[in-house]
Amino acid sequence: MPFEPEERRPRLTPAIADVRRAVRGACSDLADGCLVLVALSGGADSLALAAATAFEAPRAGLRAGAVIVDHGLQDASAEVAERAALRAREVGLDPVRVVRVHVDPASPEGPEGAARTARYAALAAQASDLGAAAVLLAHTLDDQAETVLLGLARGSGAASLQGMAAEAGLYRRPLLGIRRATTRAFCDDARLEPWHDPQNADLSYARVRVRERALPVLEAELGPGVAEALARTAEQLREDNAAFQQMIEETIEDIVEHVEAGIAVSVSALEANPPALRGRLVRYVALAEFGVALERVHVQAVLRLVTDWRGQKPLDLPGFTAAREGALLVLRGA
Amino acid sequence: MPFEPEERRPRLTPAIADVRRAVRGACSDLADGCLVLVALSGGADSLALAAATAFEAPRAGLRAGAVIVDHGLQDASAEVAERAALRAREVGLDPVRVVRVHVDPASPEGPEGAARTARYAALAAQASDLGAAAVLLAHTLDDQAETVLLGLARGSGAASLQGMAAEAGLYRRPLLGIRRATTRAFCDDARLEPWHDPQNADLSYARVRVRERALPVLEAELGPGVAEALARTAEQLREDNAAFQQMIEETIEDIVEHVEAGIAVSVSALEANPPALRGRLVRYVALAEFGVALERVHVQAVLRLVTDWRGQKPLDLPGFTAAREGALLVLRGA
Repeated sequence: MPFEPEERRPRLTPAIADVRRAVRGACSDLADGCLVLVALSGGADSLALAAATAFEAPRAGLRAGAVIVDHGLQDASAEVAERAALRAREVGLDPVRVVRVHVDPASPEGPEGAARTARYAALAAQASDLGAAAVLLAHTLDDQAETVLLGLARGSGAASLQGMAAEAGLYRRPLLGIRRATTRAFCDDARLEPWHDPQNADLSYARVRVRERALPVLEAELGPGVAEALARTAEQLREDNAAFQQMIEETIEDIVEHVEAGIAVSVSALEANPPALRGRLVRYVALAEFGVALERVHVQAVLRLVTDWRGQKPLDLPGFTAAREGALLVLRGA
Repeated sequence: MPFEPEERRPRLTPAIADVRRAVRGACSDLADGCLVLVALSGGADSLALAAATAFEAPRAGLRAGAVIVDHGLQDASAEVAERAALRAREVGLDPVRVVRVHVDPASPEGPEGAARTARYAALAAQASDLGAAAVLLAHTLDDQAETVLLGLARGSGAASLQGMAAEAGLYRRPLLGIRRATTRAFCDDARLEPWHDPQNADLSYARVRVRERALPVLEAELGPGVAEALARTAEQLREDNAAFQQMIEETIEDIVEHVEAGIAVSVSALEANPPALRGRLVRYVALAEFGVALERVHVQAVLRLVTDWRGQKPLDLPGFTAAREGALLVLRGA
């Protein structure tokens, strides 16, 4: 083994072992020679992910690079991006790319949403350009818990509480089971200096308020382990949703027929399903046919045409009408 | 209409209308002449429920009475119970019964659990004795939201977040869609003086900490509507659970067989189901056969014998062992 100065060889501390194990697990199915890219901001989470991936990838026969997206939203953003790129090269990632994106702060998605859209577009473009098999995102268990609590405030059941997927298309989130404290410890242990994003302390963001105020109060009042409980809940509800989605996709073709200017669903087929599936079938059809994401109160109104039929008038809903016509529930574009 | 002094005829305020409508809806399926009993503590929620039920029942052809359970846990409990009984008779309920129960504070359920068990046993006994068709419980939307947050802290997915049922056997909860502020307004508007339970201010109870500290912070940081969102979530997750339960009950007999000292589940049947159902099937069998409520981590370990079979050893779990035997997953009592 070639000589390395002491400070460049981190001891295998528990935090380093945990993060490396998580990366190893998330990449275990990738074929020899594949390239994985780490989405790097320079913060503790993505820096730990970058260093662990640089360590694990060659041992798994993989190549590992990094993409740093410069959103151009803060004065020093170019400098921050270049410093992150330097760190990525220091830990041994190659290739390392910095991509500057344009974020429209006046976008209808809002500035956070516009930044996210631009970021994912840039990551996908780089992955395609470099032929990467996977892009690793550094979301931690704490991010997951925050996402669940933010979803809870919107409150529409399992779909809004399922948090982020461990794997979705090109993207993988190896750190969803890792606490943020562990990524910080990783950086300390590995003598990596993370960037501290000033946005993480800006209480005008709902996510920051959840992190700084809501979660600490829940931990204090309900006992420790709330973040882990939220993350476990997300995982289970994601499975539940996937199961319902699969059932719907398996049955939808058999119970709908196209009619003039709309689509009809068999009333008896809806009745034969439990309420959870009935509601999801109606929601699925409304989204697929009319691009409308129905709220629970509207779904319930539509279902009364099925399960509580007393000759009601057709319902005017956002984007379409729903009417009972004999043995059919008929939805027509408005 | 006979003369009534002004102060005895409450105006129909929004709060009174809301609570009455909720009671009317919850009782609309009961047959003429049936008796409904209100479980009354004397607090604002159950007092509003009692008064609204006394008003609605005769108009729906029903009889309405009250049961007051004296848990004997506080010095003045007998007096509080008698005062509640007096209120019940004043609003027009009949029969009105006060039942003293014995609560063992050293019970393994804990004092709260023991009080709940004794209370429900007393309510069921009175309902049976009086031939009641339903017992109305005064849990509000706020109680439901608190229950969901308490479940969140335990964190095992939809089952722990589904809150309380609007209808379960004899019991009905007409006020699950009503805010606690509304029951208080009802009492003000109807000039009913509710009892203030000192336990509601005792921060040694997790539920009181959720009410007084956690929910207000969530409302402040995530915006108003959090309690409603939690209640909506509970309703949807309860439907989801019911759907999965129905699917399991429809398929379980076809995929299990009894073997010596245990039960065997078909591996291919488990594999054919989505993960959400697989996990629930394993949980269902463990509970039905061995009375064991499996945690998620154990369910996942069992499922690795199905979906990730590499010749692993049998698993020792609390109360039973799980082993892969050819095309079967075999669970045997420990």
